[in-house]
Amino acid sequence: MRRKIAVLAILFLCMGVSLFAQESIESLGFSLDVVWLFIGSILVFIMQAGFALVETGLTQAKNATNITMKNVMDFCFGAIVYWAIGWGFMYGKDALGGLIGTDQFFNGPMSLDFESGNFYKSWFFQVVFAATAATIVSGAMAERTQFKSYLVYTCFISAFIYPISGHWVWGGGWLANLGFHDFAGSTVVHSVGGWAALMGAAILGPRTGKYVKGADGKISVKAFPGHNIPYAALGVLLLFFGWFGFNAASTGLATVGEGGIWSGLNIARVSVTTTLAASAGAAAALIFSWIWFKKPDASMTLNGLLAGLVAITAPCAVVSPGASIIIGAIGGVLVVLAVEFIDKVLKIDDPVGASSVHLVCGVFGTLAVGIWGNVEGVAVGVLHGGGFAQLGIQFLGIISVGAWAAIMSVVLFFLIKAVLGLRVSPKDELMGLDQSEHKSEAYSGFQIFSNM
Amino acid sequence: MRRKIAVLAILFLCMGVSLFAQESIESLGFSLDVVWLFIGSILVFIMQAGFALVETGLTQAKNATNITMKNVMDFCFGAIVYWAIGWGFMYGKDALGGLIGTDQFFNGPMSLDFESGNFYKSWFFQVVFAATAATIVSGAMAERTQFKSYLVYTCFISAFIYPISGHWVWGGGWLANLGFHDFAGSTVVHSVGGWAALMGAAILGPRTGKYVKGADGKISVKAFPGHNIPYAALGVLLLFFGWFGFNAASTGLATVGEGGIWSGLNIARVSVTTTLAASAGAAAALIFSWIWFKKPDASMTLNGLLAGLVAITAPCAVVSPGASIIIGAIGGVLVVLAVEFIDKVLKIDDPVGASSVHLVCGVFGTLAVGIWGNVEGVAVGVLHGGGFAQLGIQFLGIISVGAWAAIMSVVLFFLIKAVLGLRVSPKDELMGLDQSEHKSEAYSGFQIFSNM
Amino acid sequence: MRRKIAVLAILFLCMGVSLFAQESIESLGFSLDVVWLFIGSILVFIMQAGFALVETGLTQAKNATNITMKNVMDFCFGAIVYWAIGWGFMYGKDALGGLIGTDQFFNGPMSLDFESGNFYKSWFFQVVFAATAATIVSGAMAERTQFKSYLVYTCFISAFIYPISGHWVWGGGWLANLGFHDFAGSTVVHSVGGWAALMGAAILGPRTGKYVKGADGKISVKAFPGHNIPYAALGVLLLFFGWFGFNAASTGLATVGEGGIWSGLNIARVSVTTTLAASAGAAAALIFSWIWFKKPDASMTLNGLLAGLVAITAPCAVVSPGASIIIGAIGGVLVVLAVEFIDKVLKIDDPVGASSVHLVCGVFGTLAVGIWGNVEGVAVGVLHGGGFAQLGIQFLGIISVGAWAAIMSVVLFFLIKAVLGLRVSPKDELMGLDQSEHKSEAYSGFQIFSNM
Repeated sequence: MRRKIAVLAILFLCMGVSLFAQESIESLGFSLDVVWLFIGSILVFIMQAGFALVETGLTQAKNATNITMKNVMDFCFGAIVYWAIGWGFMYGKDALGGLIGTDQFFNGPMSLDFESGNFYKSWFFQVVFAATAATIVSGAMAERTQFKSYLVYTCFISAFIYPISGHWVWGGGWLANLGFHDFAGSTVVHSVGGWAALMGAAILGPRTGKYVKGADGKISVKAFPGHNIPYAALGVLLLFFGWFGFNAASTGLATVGEGGIWSGLNIARVSVTTTLAASAGAAAALIFSWIWFKKPDASMTLNGLLAGLVAITAPCAVVSPGASIIIGAIGGVLVVLAVEFIDKVLKIDDPVGASSVHLVCGVFGTLAVGIWGNVEGVAVGVLHGGGFAQLGIQFLGIISVGAWAAIMSVVLFFLIKAVLGLRVSPKDELMGLDQSEHKSEAYSGFQIFSNM
Repeated sequence: MRRKIAVLAILFLCMGVSLFAQESIESLGFSLDVVWLFIGSILVFIMQAGFALVETGLTQAKNATNITMKNVMDFCFGAIVYWAIGWGFMYGKDALGGLIGTDQFFNGPMSLDFESGNFYKSWFFQVVFAATAATIVSGAMAERTQFKSYLVYTCFISAFIYPISGHWVWGGGWLANLGFHDFAGSTVVHSVGGWAALMGAAILGPRTGKYVKGADGKISVKAFPGHNIPYAALGVLLLFFGWFGFNAASTGLATVGEGGIWSGLNIARVSVTTTLAASAGAAAALIFSWIWFKKPDASMTLNGLLAGLVAITAPCAVVSPGASIIIGAIGGVLVVLAVEFIDKVLKIDDPVGASSVHLVCGVFGTLAVGIWGNVEGVAVGVLHGGGFAQLGIQFLGIISVGAWAAIMSVVLFFLIKAVLGLRVSPKDELMGLDQSEHKSEAYSGFQIFSNM
Repeated sequence: MRRKIAVLAILFLCMGVSLFAQESIESLGFSLDVVWLFIGSILVFIMQAGFALVETGLTQAKNATNITMKNVMDFCFGAIVYWAIGWGFMYGKDALGGLIGTDQFFNGPMSLDFESGNFYKSWFFQVVFAATAATIVSGAMAERTQFKSYLVYTCFISAFIYPISGHWVWGGGWLANLGFHDFAGSTVVHSVGGWAALMGAAILGPRTGKYVKGADGKISVKAFPGHNIPYAALGVLLLFFGWFGFNAASTGLATVGEGGIWSGLNIARVSVTTTLAASAGAAAALIFSWIWFKKPDASMTLNGLLAGLVAITAPCAVVSPGASIIIGAIGGVLVVLAVEFIDKVLKIDDPVGASSVHLVCGVFGTLAVGIWGNVEGVAVGVLHGGGFAQLGIQFLGIISVGAWAAIMSVVLFFLIKAVLGLRVSPKDELMGLDQSEHKSEAYSGFQIFSNM
């Protein structure tokens, strides 16, 4: 009898320890996932500094305060409105068959009890993504936009435009249900920002002196060289740095995920494809511009690196390292062609090439999933025996998100133009936005010549 | 009988596996906590670069080498003295009823055996906090302090001033025992640095030409614009980036903490409140300065962002996201008022506004715990039914730490002034400290005009 | 009977839970290790930005685009060739008794099945190390090297020179088998890069105007001051930041490692020794240059900080904090002596002091293992009763890796010189490489005087 009691006692002890272990493991896994998302979030956050430096470096010295202020403030306003409104549209309870989220506005997701911890956990990661989409636009509209109008725009994209199409893909909306695959946001983030950038630049019109009709009736295109290439290079390296978080932490988890997917392994894979695609993008843009323009052009090469990053963002978790090199290299060539096309043919003045990088390569990267995808059950592309099914869905996603972002941006910019005005006066543009908008200069004490 | 043996065998196997699992879980938890503190530490470390850039950007080109050197060297000297002396005062065995730590000087905490691992584990995180307190001062004393005197000061604050008041709050000292709550250091770090900054700037006197008495006897206040706003903006973004580590890693653990607190969840919460407070601080300072000065001022806005960060540092783990927006916004308005008050009314010349940001908003943030705190058992503020108890304790902490830091700084600076001298000669100041102190220029080849 | 069944059922349940727990713990440990290596990798990655800024800041404005482009592109080309070729030489199946790896070229290590996950997991961490070795060279060869020739060089060091000697030490090769200890790469990374830097600078010859023979036959040495000290300081802080990953993540694991080593504890220890050595290096260089040159020299001090980091890289996991201060301080003094010796006595023109920092201090740091090492079973040095055994092995490693790197670099640079040419024309050098190589200027609009 005593022995039986002893056996039972040990038995229950064992059970207790086992169950406690199980609980501890779950709690440890939760902590690791929180730490992982935190790492991803801070990396995506620092991309704000990368964008600020790239855009500052590739534009003129007389607008440097203005462009850095735009980059700082689009994050700050964007974070507040994304907390108040955007999150709810993106991750709230689905309505209208996958079209829009409808709750969790303001304090909704921020509850402190543990059950709601998952929402809490994700907010930081989500807000830095929203801020990335918003900040893409500032470069394309640089050197001629009113500061207050830009702030109004940035609130709307963060509260409304980005979250709603984001809901379609990442919030469990209709594109997600169709099997559209955009791992880290070539479409959700980059081409949404890219469309807004292109529409904004087109509606604003070119910088004064950019396209000049000569006596012979031919239009000559003037280049406005950037005022600080080291800023641009540092910015690109910071973006590259942050992009590892952007792509790798889009696993969402570091621990084993749904369906037993090894998120840990995916983190490693995404790091490899991201590194190689970016490198191939820079290398391809360097070589292509060297052949075409007879010089290894710095800004083209830096944009080529970003092009490789944007292109690999959607497919980074479903393609092989070899494919990632091909995808990156195509991105690098595409961006050179797109910059020339938008500048010389469309005659839309995008001072830093934002729409070429984020829109053109965002579209290409999304398609790449349907071409080089090789993960059974997630995305299998044309080259891996998946036929055209995935490619078709990718195309549908590109078109629908693109139409949404483009149309909404056009409406928004025309509204702002009508109500507040969008552009500074030619006199203010000539003087520089630092003086005219902020009554200060970026480089006090330095002798600077305006190149207008 | 055989069956019994089999049952027992399985039983002991189970026990073994269970106990082994338990040990593995503990070891895994230890590793995760180390990784988490490491992440926090490197983030706080990079704030040194943020401070260096903000201070360099907001001062004159002729002093740029000097100010970056001060920022690099206060970390380097500070780390060595904090290892040798400071840690012992802060985390050594308590003496005099919570007043001071008394052992673990030099190699003390650095033992390699596992039992002492916890000390080892924390040192990196602690030294970067000490360095933050020290480096705050360099901006306030910029453009006129002797380099060697600054180095002496920095050794004393890192070895002595910061660790002793730090012991009161974080080393298990008397303020900790009273229930004073300063999660990540609005008081412990920022207002200690802020008091030293204000005292240093006052004792040094203003930069030559800052306050000029006109023929009518009225004193006119001259502005010395910063020489590189993009540096300042990049610096602020790096500080924002690092601050996520400063606040979130002040959980100490990523795993479940004492009393079963979900550190993982706290990390997520702190990330949200930190993001929102900083954003609200920048937005409030922008709007307030736009209304007041009729321009969206860059340096005020950047300081507003930092003000939001300083203000949320103490309460970040005990307030709601909504409250964090209010706290940040108040910080952003306060810093504009404080900069004007210190500059125009007190006529203390703090070139980068360090005392407004770190002292004024550090005090406010510490009080905020007693107003908006809403975590039962940790800190409940006036607005959440806690009455004035917590607020009273917060007030006591602010006064006592403030008195300590202010008095010790005054004594220290007067001693340095008497022994070494504190200020460079007016001729050296006019020439710039890069030439006079370091015999070099920061921007060789560039044409720069002095604005004195 | 029923009771027996119940007992057995509970028993098997327990076993199941226990075994499941065990599997979960292993999977969690894998995830944590992946996250840890990811953290290390991104930190080492951002050192590319650090190198770019240090080298840009310490050279002339007219070559700023060129030097940043070199830094960006050596990573990009290096990553692709290290994926295709380098990894296989370094970590492929050993051949020739520890001399070289022989498989896993191209897609080899990138397989997506779980068994190969370990290779996958490490690649990102390894490629950023390879890129560090490559990028060291760009500073020493600054301001006079043809861009295309530099790109060819960088492909060879990443594909061939670095991986083969790397195999000897980290790939299970012959030096590893002898017990050579180089924890994070004072020899494997830094002195390999340093030898290539010294050989490259010597073969290129000095910048025009650097060593001028006067009328009296005496050669006067001209200084070319750097054009942006804040860049250099920011670069050094970014390198310091990244170095924490370089050293601490060289534990490879965050969980318990082979032989039950507490990797978590090692992470903490390495963070402490790295902080202290860097700080001591900067402090020693500052004081030493202040005494010698009568001024606290900025570039010497910054190089002193890097010297401390290079010196602690090999011994960081086997020495005490006190020893790390001594090692760092010696490194800081050594680098000042080495810069003067290489510049004034050897008359090799290394514009940024790369060979002094990485080669001289890399050699010293590797020896330091044999002097101050104090971990039984890993490395015990002369001062801890280990006799001269470890020191002898360290010496052998320094000599053999050094001979390999130096000879291969000489062969490579002479080949490139013969086939492509290595140096730009004197006219192009005078004009600056931004104009001559890239047809652009780094600082458009700024008034800059050439100091040649």
